[in-house]
Amino acid sequence: MQISSFQPPVRTFMGPGPADVHPRVSAALARPTVGHLDPAFGAMMEELKCLLRYAFRTDNPLTMPVSAPGSAGMETCFVNLVEPGDKVVVCINGVFGGRMRENVRRCGGEAVVVEDEWGRAVDPQKLEDTLKAHADARLVAFVHAETSTGACSDVKTLTEIAHRHDCLTIVDAVTALGGSPLEVDAWGIDAIYAGSQKCLSCTPGLAPISVSERALTKVTGRSTPVQSWFLDLNLVLGYWQGPTGGGKRAYHHTAPVNALYGLHEALVMLTEEGLEAAWERHYRHHLALRAGLETLGLELVVPEAERLPQLNVVAVPGGVDEAAVRSRLLSTYGLEIGAGLGTFAGKVWRIGLMGYSSRAENILLCLAALGSVLNDAGQQADTGAALTAAQAMLSQ
Amino acid sequence: MQISSFQPPVRTFMGPGPADVHPRVSAALARPTVGHLDPAFGAMMEELKCLLRYAFRTDNPLTMPVSAPGSAGMETCFVNLVEPGDKVVVCINGVFGGRMRENVRRCGGEAVVVEDEWGRAVDPQKLEDTLKAHADARLVAFVHAETSTGACSDVKTLTEIAHRHDCLTIVDAVTALGGSPLEVDAWGIDAIYAGSQKCLSCTPGLAPISVSERALTKVTGRSTPVQSWFLDLNLVLGYWQGPTGGGKRAYHHTAPVNALYGLHEALVMLTEEGLEAAWERHYRHHLALRAGLETLGLELVVPEAERLPQLNVVAVPGGVDEAAVRSRLLSTYGLEIGAGLGTFAGKVWRIGLMGYSSRAENILLCLAALGSVLNDAGQQADTGAALTAAQAMLSQ
Repeated sequence: MQISSFQPPVRTFMGPGPADVHPRVSAALARPTVGHLDPAFGAMMEELKCLLRYAFRTDNPLTMPVSAPGSAGMETCFVNLVEPGDKVVVCINGVFGGRMRENVRRCGGEAVVVEDEWGRAVDPQKLEDTLKAHADARLVAFVHAETSTGACSDVKTLTEIAHRHDCLTIVDAVTALGGSPLEVDAWGIDAIYAGSQKCLSCTPGLAPISVSERALTKVTGRSTPVQSWFLDLNLVLGYWQGPTGGGKRAYHHTAPVNALYGLHEALVMLTEEGLEAAWERHYRHHLALRAGLETLGLELVVPEAERLPQLNVVAVPGGVDEAAVRSRLLSTYGLEIGAGLGTFAGKVWRIGLMGYSSRAENILLCLAALGSVLNDAGQQADTGAALTAAQAMLSQ
Repeated sequence: MQISSFQPPVRTFMGPGPADVHPRVSAALARPTVGHLDPAFGAMMEELKCLLRYAFRTDNPLTMPVSAPGSAGMETCFVNLVEPGDKVVVCINGVFGGRMRENVRRCGGEAVVVEDEWGRAVDPQKLEDTLKAHADARLVAFVHAETSTGACSDVKTLTEIAHRHDCLTIVDAVTALGGSPLEVDAWGIDAIYAGSQKCLSCTPGLAPISVSERALTKVTGRSTPVQSWFLDLNLVLGYWQGPTGGGKRAYHHTAPVNALYGLHEALVMLTEEGLEAAWERHYRHHLALRAGLETLGLELVVPEAERLPQLNVVAVPGGVDEAAVRSRLLSTYGLEIGAGLGTFAGKVWRIGLMGYSSRAENILLCLAALGSVLNDAGQQADTGAALTAAQAMLSQ
């Protein structure tokens, strides 16, 4: 067997995630492993919960990272909150809403779908109408920042509507957390999950979640067991609750110790910058990138009022081989941008400015590289003007 | 918010896992992140599958790491292979057999239990008798290396019995893989899962699995959907199968990229040492540690023929405060040994010699430190004689 150590190429990430990982986070991953029941590790777990509460803007005691990627964070919320036969309203405006419906189905629930066009926010009126027609629904699920389309939905309004109809909410904030305004407590969100590898600039593999006291009451009062042993919050809590929850830390599964060091470091960096400053930085850089992209002749597919700052989805110009452009950006400049998913496959590029990727130098690299590749593909892209437009926004 | 970077203490791991992580593995974790769909990463995934086939001694195409800890590896096997109403024979001789039963229950299956004493191997005759009494069972599940007791069961014989009764097998090899003889193909195992943080000396967080073609046919031919979206092999395979499986790599979830670098490096090191040499090292070091422990007056709880080399479970001497001893070893020497779980709580210590932890210097440290702490606790432990006994075995 002749396989040697893997030496990965160095990339710049401007896709839908992972984002660039800060060197401080990489360094944290390599620190000495400690045991998952070591008192020193327990102290770090308590800090991690505080840091996540800061990022989510919540006081929810149940705020912690699930030991697996964002998709498992989604599944944690659904398997704990949905019981067989439950009716769940799922708002679908992209890939991840569709995945939510699939989760409901696999939990034995009945999904009632509110459908919106790809690239648009969820329409609050449709949710209102659906809840009026389905008075027996007790859960509403939707995506804050649709990673497949770049659309941002109005979580505050959707949550208010759900609550007026006596429903709890499950919110997908995988791409939102740390990148744009999100207020778990002020908006009354009941269960929310995110990912480590987007606007938090950590490596992929962890899913921060937060669950309100009201939602937790539903979890602890279930009449059927949670179908997943690994994701059952009734058990996971015995490990994560710890001394601040009044209990002894009990072994459930072996936590991914070093990955958690990375998330801790990424969150410490977020507190150093300040959450609101991070939101502002994502917005400012979005304006600069957008000015440049539009000057290159590219069109953003999401209407301005519904756009995510951290994920810019542009239409591929007619006659351009979208995969060839991405491949060329990767091979020549080490620059990763994202392809379209689902309905958007082959039609869009997804250009992310998430976390540590959201830097002025990345904006310039992206515009310069994309302009050059588009020109080679026969487009009339004015790269110089695009860079000037972006720089004008950056210096404001 | 005043939380700063976490600087973990440096530990020596001689518990039930995690094991000491080799510096080469730590260094691999900190390498530059690449995208989960990057061609360079895809090439590493293909190598990782080859390396895992080497470690499992199998040609199963479906051999890959699950993106979550060992418990999720267990759940992957059960949710994919058990359908509601299925009768599953579960052999329980410790904590992890009990967890298997819980998995069956949550999949809507019916668990028929074969119970054996804690600290003993599974009794093949009991399995035979149970299968005769339950001719409609189609699955048998058992633990190869019971991490809670240190007992090793005869996987080859148990699998033969299961196959004679037309049952597939699910085997827990979390603590076995890389530490003691295990032959997935030669023994005919149908589905097996392990953990990254035991005898592979990687950090915790990943669960290598391997599934036979016969078992995969059952997965792809299910009449009900797999209840977990995240662990559904029908979907996960679209990502891991890749070009060698004849397909294009499709996005399912975002893989834990850097954690996989660590596993890759740990497995490259295993090929450098050689799998059989690694088994032999674990056995030789077990004999040395055992000689020392017995000279200290400690008794191993598992009968000799059923003992795991990589996990030595000793009875706590009467009158000794077991938690105080562990706490003292940790605080004074940075040495972690394991407590008892379940029935064994408070009664045993679990002393691991797994992977990179299985080194001569660790054996000497453990005996010297434990001897000293036991003497302080009023025991008559002859540390010098214990070290001499261990060194005599090491130099054979």
